[in-house]
Amino acid sequence: MRIKMVIEYDGSNYHGFQIQPNAITIQETLETCLAQLTGETIRITAAGRTDAGVHAMGQVISFDTASTIPDDRFCLALNRFLPDDIKALSSRQAPDDFNARFNAVKKTYRYSIYNSAAGQILVRKYALCLNETLDIEAMQQACRYIEGRHDFSSFCASGSSARTFERNVMKCELTHNGVWLTLEMEADGFLYNMVRITVGTLLEVGRSRLSPQDISSILEVRDRAAASPTAPPQGLCLIKVDYPDTLRIQEQ
Amino acid sequence: MRIKMVIEYDGSNYHGFQIQPNAITIQETLETCLAQLTGETIRITAAGRTDAGVHAMGQVISFDTASTIPDDRFCLALNRFLPDDIKALSSRQAPDDFNARFNAVKKTYRYSIYNSAAGQILVRKYALCLNETLDIEAMQQACRYIEGRHDFSSFCASGSSARTFERNVMKCELTHNGVWLTLEMEADGFLYNMVRITVGTLLEVGRSRLSPQDISSILEVRDRAAASPTAPPQGLCLIKVDYPDTLRIQEQ
Repeated sequence: MRIKMVIEYDGSNYHGFQIQPNAITIQETLETCLAQLTGETIRITAAGRTDAGVHAMGQVISFDTASTIPDDRFCLALNRFLPDDIKALSSRQAPDDFNARFNAVKKTYRYSIYNSAAGQILVRKYALCLNETLDIEAMQQACRYIEGRHDFSSFCASGSSARTFERNVMKCELTHNGVWLTLEMEADGFLYNMVRITVGTLLEVGRSRLSPQDISSILEVRDRAAASPTAPPQGLCLIKVDYPDTLRIQEQ
Repeated sequence: MRIKMVIEYDGSNYHGFQIQPNAITIQETLETCLAQLTGETIRITAAGRTDAGVHAMGQVISFDTASTIPDDRFCLALNRFLPDDIKALSSRQAPDDFNARFNAVKKTYRYSIYNSAAGQILVRKYALCLNETLDIEAMQQACRYIEGRHDFSSFCASGSSARTFERNVMKCELTHNGVWLTLEMEADGFLYNMVRITVGTLLEVGRSRLSPQDISSILEVRDRAAASPTAPPQGLCLIKVDYPDTLRIQEQ
């Protein structure tokens, strides 16, 4: 049967999701633990292949298994083998052709910024730590230019294998709560480093080195060099992946 | 000169503050780095000797040095030697007889509880992670019985070297914000494990196994066995230490 599983992880100690030689990854750890649980060689597909240091609260993976473990108990069974920084939250049988990556219709990422001199130590692995005056209203205005269907070439790291650069950003919302600044982005898909380049560019707006309107021209030129440096990975977290209702995967 | 220094640390990877053989501690790390910075053998005194896994955002230490580094630059100089989970926030010259521990008139601790199945992975080192229904209003009522001057023998772990068990709790406040429950306690002093035993007991009130009024009788019997199990260390953080204004240490 094909399984759809929702997982969360602390990416601090991994070289990203995707398997690679000579470095420990989330994928390798999951596949090793699935092998220990089932005795099978299992290859998994993930909705979003997060980079080194990036976290997830709602990553989705799909894989096949001949195991007789009931689909909804699979997550509990797997948790007995997983290390304490990876956890399976739920599992369900999915249609045989379900693919966690290609069937995704929407992904939600959150980027957390902690803006205070005191207390950085306790959040340093889960937020970008700053201590500067930012024009938050200008940053929020800039978010309005990100939202919508655009060619996001300027917000895509070189080395991307993407064939099209148009994406539909349904939500790009910056909220401010005391020392915390949180950017939530929802889109039908994300280009390589798209959230982190967006954050880096919004910060330049916050520092008044760019105006909110500059986002428009940055998008127009379709050139990575027009946007600002990429924000570091530890502030980023994959929150949620949505699939079409027509897939009829039982609610979890 | 005597220095008063405010420090923060992530206690996850330390066997507590106080120096001990065969285990790495905050005190040992600070003293080693101070020796590297000054060339002197420096012994430090801390306001609160936090346990293994407990964090600090406003721990205060005092020590003597013959260094010519200006008092307010001492923290920056020391940070060049400290590991990334300990940071000096500020430093000032203090009166020659200043003692970070014995001159403290008030300490503030915070205990964080994360109450949700999802997202525990990202806060597991900085909060007690639960996923249960708690009667928060009852817990808040119970807090009222903790506040005030009481004999806290029932909330003191055995093995304590305390000679008196009376303490004045100026504040014991539980706030609820979504998946977060935060207890803030201010007192003129804390007995060994006092905050963590208080949290463990408040949780039993939240589970309706104790009533808020039971706190009164637990205090009265002056017996550790009357209170509930100690909550784990990772939710605890030393937030702030106050000293008398008469010490006239420059504002930091």
